[in-house]
Amino acid sequence: MSQFLQHRPLCLASSSPRRKMFLKKYGLQFDCHTPKINETPEKSESAKSFVKRMANEKALQVQRTYSKLAEDVIILAGDTIVYFDGKILGKPQSIQDARTMLTQFSGKTHQVFSGYSILDSSSGNQITDLVCTEVRFLKLDADLLEWYLNSKEPFDKAGAYSIQGLGAILVESISGSYSNVVGFPIECIIPNLTANGWISFAENTQHEVYT
Amino acid sequence: MSQFLQHRPLCLASSSPRRKMFLKKYGLQFDCHTPKINETPEKSESAKSFVKRMANEKALQVQRTYSKLAEDVIILAGDTIVYFDGKILGKPQSIQDARTMLTQFSGKTHQVFSGYSILDSSSGNQITDLVCTEVRFLKLDADLLEWYLNSKEPFDKAGAYSIQGLGAILVESISGSYSNVVGFPIECIIPNLTANGWISFAENTQHEVYT
Repeated sequence: MSQFLQHRPLCLASSSPRRKMFLKKYGLQFDCHTPKINETPEKSESAKSFVKRMANEKALQVQRTYSKLAEDVIILAGDTIVYFDGKILGKPQSIQDARTMLTQFSGKTHQVFSGYSILDSSSGNQITDLVCTEVRFLKLDADLLEWYLNSKEPFDKAGAYSIQGLGAILVESISGSYSNVVGFPIECIIPNLTANGWISFAENTQHEVYT
Repeated sequence: MSQFLQHRPLCLASSSPRRKMFLKKYGLQFDCHTPKINETPEKSESAKSFVKRMANEKALQVQRTYSKLAEDVIILAGDTIVYFDGKILGKPQSIQDARTMLTQFSGKTHQVFSGYSILDSSSGNQITDLVCTEVRFLKLDADLLEWYLNSKEPFDKAGAYSIQGLGAILVESISGSYSNVVGFPIECIIPNLTANGWISFAENTQHEVYT
């Protein structure tokens, strides 16, 4: 099993099981703290600016709030929104809200933006960036829509669906990063951590078995 | 949990854990049989024709071979290939073979084709079709490449990577179906099964809890 060597402690500023899953898949050790910030867009703030600001503020809020963090911790934060027809769509508040979101996606393309932020506590340096993916939905018939609404899956997901769950059969195609749609563009985050020397590729001890 | 009602027995003509996983995720019950066919492209056969023929033949071979199949079974088969620079790439035969494949993908776009075939044993009707996804790789540096080769993951995968595994960090973006790259375009297969009345969306009994 290929692993990473960790040279700095990591903290995930998120309680999202999907973000935890991405880091665990790569064998990374990390603490988790849930940021508490006001997640309301400012007047005339663009969706892209908003999602970057959210990721940025989540990392900073965790740094300020948790006094027991190691001084040299690297804090990782992410925020994901769904954008359609000029509107930012968060998690649905009711079944009707989820039905409205999914109905408007039917047969059309929407965008998913994930902002991510990597904060080096010891230097204060912070990298914040954004990934955008276009997601095209199949034309949803009423049976499929009601079946999906009844699966419980829509209710804690931005845009009311989970591409990695049962919602996979709603999606015709995507254009861009898949992990971004899941909620954490891991193909951006890990190279950033290695490029800064905070983690590194572990030496292999089993190479010969494949030659 | 939303489920499907099954009106016909299903048989998966594959031993791929990824294909099994897709059907299990949707709560479908099925038998598995491994088809044994000659997986060599014919002279001057195109990649698209080849992958459809493979899916088609896998379904038919399982139907012919397993005498204990129910008469009304629906047989599902799939075949996935990676296509780059005019060549069909299968599973790597050695670490050097995997290194060569991944090196040529670095910073470039290749295509993944999945053929799928759905055979109705009782009528003999067979639906066979194809899905194509473009996959763009990040520019792979030597450390990442060697780390990935040492993960064991490349060795039973067409094209020497797994997009749903550790290989997620090799992929910059995709254009098309994600499940196709995993190996089974489930968003094509399930609607086909429902449209033919072989499975249907189960009635919901818990609807009221979300209103």
